[in-house]
Amino acid sequence: MNKWLTDVGGPGFAHTYRIEEDLYRGRSPFQEIRVIANRDFGRMLVLDEAVQTTERDEFIYHEMLAHVPLLAHAAPRRVLIIGGGDGGLLEEALKHPLEAAVMVEIDRDVIEVTRRFLPQIPGGAFEDARTRLHIADGIRYMDETAETFDVILVDSTDPKGPAVGLFAEAFYAAAGRRLTPSGLIAVQSGSPLYQQDLIRMVRAHLGAVFPHVATYMATVPTYPGVLWSFTIGAAGADPRAVSEETVARRTTGFALQYLTPQIHRAAFALPPFIARDLGIAG
Amino acid sequence: MNKWLTDVGGPGFAHTYRIEEDLYRGRSPFQEIRVIANRDFGRMLVLDEAVQTTERDEFIYHEMLAHVPLLAHAAPRRVLIIGGGDGGLLEEALKHPLEAAVMVEIDRDVIEVTRRFLPQIPGGAFEDARTRLHIADGIRYMDETAETFDVILVDSTDPKGPAVGLFAEAFYAAAGRRLTPSGLIAVQSGSPLYQQDLIRMVRAHLGAVFPHVATYMATVPTYPGVLWSFTIGAAGADPRAVSEETVARRTTGFALQYLTPQIHRAAFALPPFIARDLGIAG
Repeated sequence: MNKWLTDVGGPGFAHTYRIEEDLYRGRSPFQEIRVIANRDFGRMLVLDEAVQTTERDEFIYHEMLAHVPLLAHAAPRRVLIIGGGDGGLLEEALKHPLEAAVMVEIDRDVIEVTRRFLPQIPGGAFEDARTRLHIADGIRYMDETAETFDVILVDSTDPKGPAVGLFAEAFYAAAGRRLTPSGLIAVQSGSPLYQQDLIRMVRAHLGAVFPHVATYMATVPTYPGVLWSFTIGAAGADPRAVSEETVARRTTGFALQYLTPQIHRAAFALPPFIARDLGIAG
Repeated sequence: MNKWLTDVGGPGFAHTYRIEEDLYRGRSPFQEIRVIANRDFGRMLVLDEAVQTTERDEFIYHEMLAHVPLLAHAAPRRVLIIGGGDGGLLEEALKHPLEAAVMVEIDRDVIEVTRRFLPQIPGGAFEDARTRLHIADGIRYMDETAETFDVILVDSTDPKGPAVGLFAEAFYAAAGRRLTPSGLIAVQSGSPLYQQDLIRMVRAHLGAVFPHVATYMATVPTYPGVLWSFTIGAAGADPRAVSEETVARRTTGFALQYLTPQIHRAAFALPPFIARDLGIAG
């Protein structure tokens, strides 16, 4: 048994986590799924040796991928989540007054392993009457569905294996066809320190489909390099143009642990060295 | 020879860096000094196995520890730096229209190794006519000097070995006696993810001496956990009360790579989970 789990950032950099306990290790049709226990982060869900989410810091990634795009829409009613098998993103999205949250996850085992070992991450989200769960390929679902959505959230792994197509322009174009006129899509777009090529590609592909493209950041302690990026493609208003007052009003009662009105604004402030690496004009 | 350098964050977490080349390894009277080359960060200065600064990301820590406190003073003329042997903080401080920058570094070898292997970090700072360098114990210097300063910057290692006393209330009280009436002191105060006890202690010790205590953050890719904290103790105005216009005006021509007026404001926005861990009211 490995005593440390190593999650690679760049060619010369990695995070490493001491394994206190190996709680689960199995292989689904799509990937290796592992749950370990760690002193700093509690239980950790690991897919193909990459940390996906943990007991202690899951709220950061999930709050930021849910609320920043949802707040950029004036009144989101129907939300589509692609991926997100641990249910944490679904739980955050359902804090908004939605009519429906459709989730399309390719790997049933991720849901089952999370519900068994990390049940507090989805909480009651899978039982919520507004939730509709499909175990299906998100790319195929996007091409075939006739439904429309106000907000689409893509909570994928890195672009390897089944997730590659989720970063393609064709997928964003298909998503654009499923959005209402003022709709938007938000995706996790990788590390601004180690995956600049990926972020540039995501921005170019979204920019070919949507008039507004905005990248924002959060610090996710268990993603390699900690600093993480998310990118929005919006058909309607500029997603940055959300006032602190709006954030405060629309998140009242959400009990957020990371996002505040000030953090919302701060998340869009890119340091010049990152803007330069991403080819964004300062 | 180690092929990886491991820099510990918490009991179960570490950063690890592949060593492409071991450029220098020696022992000063105070610590082990090492310079390695790494694919992601270029040359890295390592003291007692803790990464201190690197070619690629040094500007983040140095810009944030220099300019945020210097901008919080209306017109700083005399600056004291305790530690900071690599000279990067000195270089940033000298971008302001100072009369004098006094630097007190305990370990001459740190300066010499940096100047040999990482000369671009200090640039010409040590040759600047405003610079006065003392090789001395900063704690003793603070007790014995009769000079006064507008801003004191403490660029120390973690509180181990010779740096322990730099985190003590007695040191901050001595610093307070060396500050002009509207003066302030800024210190690196460790990781908000792994050293919450340290930050709470720094805040309590500064709070016993100064009416204003403010913690701000930056993302330093090569410090364990990346998210890093700095804390200011101020005798005069609240250090947060600096307008974006002031930051823009007073940093014109500085060619900063991390700090912008928006980042300055964002740096003081603490996520609720961090504010809670640090015992700061939301």
